[in-house]
Amino acid sequence: MATHRERVLQVQETLLKQDLDYMFLTISPGLFYLTGHSSLVSERLYLLVIPSEGRPIIIFPGYEKTAIDYLADWIEIVGWLETDDPISFVCNALDPNGRDAPIRIAISDCTRAIFLLRMQEALPKAHFIPASEILAPMRRVKDKEELRILKEAQDMAVESLKRLFELPFAGRTEKQIAADLHRICHSIGLKLEYLQVGSGPNSARFDPNPTSRVIQRGEPVLIDFGGIHNGYYSDCTRTVYVGPPSDEFKKIFDIVREANHAALAAIRPNVGCESIDRAARQVIAAAGYGEYFLHRLGHGIGIEIHEEPWIVEGNKLLLEPGMTFTDEPGIYLPDKFGCRLEDVIAVTESGGLPLTNYSHDIIVVE
Amino acid sequence: MATHRERVLQVQETLLKQDLDYMFLTISPGLFYLTGHSSLVSERLYLLVIPSEGRPIIIFPGYEKTAIDYLADWIEIVGWLETDDPISFVCNALDPNGRDAPIRIAISDCTRAIFLLRMQEALPKAHFIPASEILAPMRRVKDKEELRILKEAQDMAVESLKRLFELPFAGRTEKQIAADLHRICHSIGLKLEYLQVGSGPNSARFDPNPTSRVIQRGEPVLIDFGGIHNGYYSDCTRTVYVGPPSDEFKKIFDIVREANHAALAAIRPNVGCESIDRAARQVIAAAGYGEYFLHRLGHGIGIEIHEEPWIVEGNKLLLEPGMTFTDEPGIYLPDKFGCRLEDVIAVTESGGLPLTNYSHDIIVVE
Repeated sequence: MATHRERVLQVQETLLKQDLDYMFLTISPGLFYLTGHSSLVSERLYLLVIPSEGRPIIIFPGYEKTAIDYLADWIEIVGWLETDDPISFVCNALDPNGRDAPIRIAISDCTRAIFLLRMQEALPKAHFIPASEILAPMRRVKDKEELRILKEAQDMAVESLKRLFELPFAGRTEKQIAADLHRICHSIGLKLEYLQVGSGPNSARFDPNPTSRVIQRGEPVLIDFGGIHNGYYSDCTRTVYVGPPSDEFKKIFDIVREANHAALAAIRPNVGCESIDRAARQVIAAAGYGEYFLHRLGHGIGIEIHEEPWIVEGNKLLLEPGMTFTDEPGIYLPDKFGCRLEDVIAVTESGGLPLTNYSHDIIVVE
Repeated sequence: MATHRERVLQVQETLLKQDLDYMFLTISPGLFYLTGHSSLVSERLYLLVIPSEGRPIIIFPGYEKTAIDYLADWIEIVGWLETDDPISFVCNALDPNGRDAPIRIAISDCTRAIFLLRMQEALPKAHFIPASEILAPMRRVKDKEELRILKEAQDMAVESLKRLFELPFAGRTEKQIAADLHRICHSIGLKLEYLQVGSGPNSARFDPNPTSRVIQRGEPVLIDFGGIHNGYYSDCTRTVYVGPPSDEFKKIFDIVREANHAALAAIRPNVGCESIDRAARQVIAAAGYGEYFLHRLGHGIGIEIHEEPWIVEGNKLLLEPGMTFTDEPGIYLPDKFGCRLEDVIAVTESGGLPLTNYSHDIIVVE
């Protein structure tokens, strides 16, 4: 795996090439990617300032010093006190000649707007662009170590689902199923961060909150969840059936599975992201359900559950070996049911390699 | 409780008074406060646009329609498709006469910077300010119903701790204690969102990640955690001792407790926030440990675990009945141990009313 210092050097090279003066990263996936460091996102400013040349600086709430001083051998650490104005520390971290000059700064996409507004006020001549313009091209291609961790994360997700599907579903609520999966993920060591449990007609909805609806025999249950393992995400959806599946569900499931496979088969280097989406969408449209496939085919996955590359019509970005993204076609019939089948796929020289190794048959639960 | 529509009307009155044209809220505590609605924060734009007069509009990822259409009787809902540019929907939501005019917009503090940058690009004459300038004065004073929910949340936190402290500590790791508290909170129905477990010297650190350090008899364990109940937070810290406490710990604990009580005694309407911080700090400074009380005394709590009012030196905001905040003095002796005692307090006409009702004696665990 590229070391954090190597990644920061690569950022600095890009800053220079693109005539940018600084990168500013608050607590964010980008900060984690470049330093391995993280902390809680809060109202207190925590900012890594990477100049295009020279030593990076981290400005942080001073009382957290003991949790950050391990970085001090390569990053200057500057703590502010509770009575300080942290924005003045940002200004002081900049080259004195540059503070009133028209500098260009790449700032982490997820920085809170209030921090950006305060920096824009303090540095009226600064021009800000999203740091993803520099970081996304780096982060969207995973190295071997990242791929290994991502594979482990997907394996843990599969193991969690296998254990979940051995438990009873009929007569229990979506919330109870959610609690089961929380407990299972915790015991496996996967930190569950996102979970959708939709039973019956709720499987056609996109509500992130499991309800108290009691699951019945003779209906599908859609389970989509994401967890973190060593800083990298899993993401997996299976739509199971409680008891023997109906003919209508089997028909829809087959179309979704075929779409999932068509996308996988289309994956290879130098193919545009949009063409992977199209491969799946054509299958569903040809079967007459195009209007019920409501979302893009997938999204990149890594340090964030959603990151580049976006597998969506209009995205002409070419696939490269090392990219990882979800293949998650779905058909959602309002007030009836929805069905989605989601795996994580890695792009290799020879095509798409599923990192999610789990059944594509209809899973029957009791 | 004020209805959501009443709160939006109050926002609109304030927008008019302050010569602001719109409030823009992405998925945020403010959006929840004004509409009761929430969804996942993601790379997809989700924006409530409140004009200073007229009907609010929510712009959202269209496939989530079924999860939001319950709002359609009072908010216009506009879904965008995966292939759309959502920023163009924002421009279209504005008064056609205002799109190229110097409009003023209050935007949610936690909006992702990338959305703000894109809006600034699309609306070059717009001036943005943090929405907290309007929402914080509303949100920091809780009504009866909010106080009732906050009290319930603190009761659940206390019950969770009581159950935790019945379990064995010695010989187990911080991570195991964290897992226990996760399980307990889940069974009580409190959604655990934040947790610090620091044993021995780790109790003097501010590391949000429990470690594999094995807890020993004869050392303190600091447990600080926050959870959500019906949209409102609990926040509670207790520093317990494994076995009979040492004289040094007893001495430090007594000082911290006295500081906590001094702050509580200082609370009454029309007193500045900073004076509550001072009341606690004076106790700790007088005992000779001023330099080891590293953080502000406390923070407001409600829909966010940290919100206004900030109980910190320099904050001259006057207390009002209905404000709720933490009283959490601490002393942190590097490489030895730390001790913090944190309750949530409500301001009433007659003084501070603890919403956390739990022992201020040293709790001994085994």
